Amino acid sequence: MQSIIKDCISRSISVKQRILQDPSFLDRMEQAVMVVSQAFKEGHKVWFCGNGGSAADAQHLAAEFSGRFYLNRKALPAEAFHCNTSYLTAVANDYDFDVIYSRLIEGLTHPGDVLIGLSTSGDSTNIVKAFESARAAKVFTIGLTGATGGQLKALSDLLFNVPATDTPRIQEAHILIGHIICQLVEAQIFGDLS
Amino acid sequence: MQSIIKDCISRSISVKQRILQDPSFLDRMEQAVMVVSQAFKEGHKVWFCGNGGSAADAQHLAAEFSGRFYLNRKALPAEAFHCNTSYLTAVANDYDFDVIYSRLIEGLTHPGDVLIGLSTSGDSTNIVKAFESARAAKVFTIGLTGATGGQLKALSDLLFNVPATDTPRIQEAHILIGHIICQLVEAQIFGDLS
Ligand SMILES: O=P(O)(O)OC[C@@H](O)[C@H]1O[C@H](O)[C@@H](O)[C@@H](O)[C@@H]1O
Ligand SMILES: O=P(O)(O)OC[C@@H](O)[C@H]1O[C@H](O)[C@@H](O)[C@@H](O)[C@@H]1O
Repeated sequence: MQSIIKDCISRSISVKQRILQDPSFLDRMEQAVMVVSQAFKEGHKVWFCGNGGSAADAQHLAAEFSGRFYLNRKALPAEAFHCNTSYLTAVANDYDFDVIYSRLIEGLTHPGDVLIGLSTSGDSTNIVKAFESARAAKVFTIGLTGATGGQLKALSDLLFNVPATDTPRIQEAHILIGHIICQLVEAQIFGDLS
Repeated sequence: MQSIIKDCISRSISVKQRILQDPSFLDRMEQAVMVVSQAFKEGHKVWFCGNGGSAADAQHLAAEFSGRFYLNRKALPAEAFHCNTSYLTAVANDYDFDVIYSRLIEGLTHPGDVLIGLSTSGDSTNIVKAFESARAAKVFTIGLTGATGGQLKALSDLLFNVPATDTPRIQEAHILIGHIICQLVEAQIFGDLS
């Protein structure tokens, strides 16, 4: 059992080392910070979506914005689309589970908002449909995926395709990327880039 | 901005390297796998609690058990205490936010259940109270904290005090530790320790 434990930790480390050594990946993180900061500054909102563990991660990151990260400051308008579970079960039951997120893009968002979608495969239908609707709605799309990017690759204005194929290792990198973006957006907006 | 990004990634890596090099930490992970597997096998439940990002992480890990991790298998009885937000707002409003979790220990758990609490400080009052109630209720306590362990140190039957003091870096290690425990528990119970 010890060797499996060590192997998982080592793989989690090596995914992050690969990101650290990829200047284009780091550049895109800086771009994401600029896009999200600008959106908030202009009064737009930031929406998150994911399924399963990635839904929890979406909620985690949305709460870093609407709650706080390092600084005491006002709430920033960010939410994860799955949080109203009454809505979720209603729409999955009355329409289709595949449209739970795209329907919210159509009903809640405005041009200039940002959608951050987390999908390790990049192929979850409800996320893909949300990204398609976001394109149509002039909502900026940021995809956090695994190595291939799946269908989100073509639908993401900025893509963070983590260099891994194993779901938990991809998710562990997503939360790191999200944390860093939150930290820097908070610093950009509230003036503490130290 | 690039140097802050690189620094965050490097720190996240180095926390995990420190865990990898701590045989006692890895031993405790193995013990947690045995305790949680045994609890499920004997028909007990596994409960999670946390606040903020750690609530999301609690929910993420509970879903890996009640949903699936790597294997297609039946649901395992695991839940995060904050998931019923109607309960949460009722009890915080009518009683006190500090008792939202301890009250559920008293009302929902049975001796032999396991409580996994995530708190980077180890000092969040509602988590500390949940652990105190768990002790009284003969519920096994597993604490996932930062370096000091805070008040959860003395209240945890098994403590994973991640060697870091920075909230996001601690959380990134918690989700890795949780993922590994889920993987190995699933393998223990459903017979695939390959
Ligand atoms: O390909 P994704 O969009 O990441 O979707 C995966 C999710 O449906 C969930 O699948 C399993 O239940 C687990 O691996 C979860 O962690 C995961 O989020
Ligand atoms: O000390 P903890 O139990 O980990 O509590 C911290 C939480 O209340 C949250 O605080 C801030 O809002 C953020 O750092 C969150 O990520 C964190 O979970």
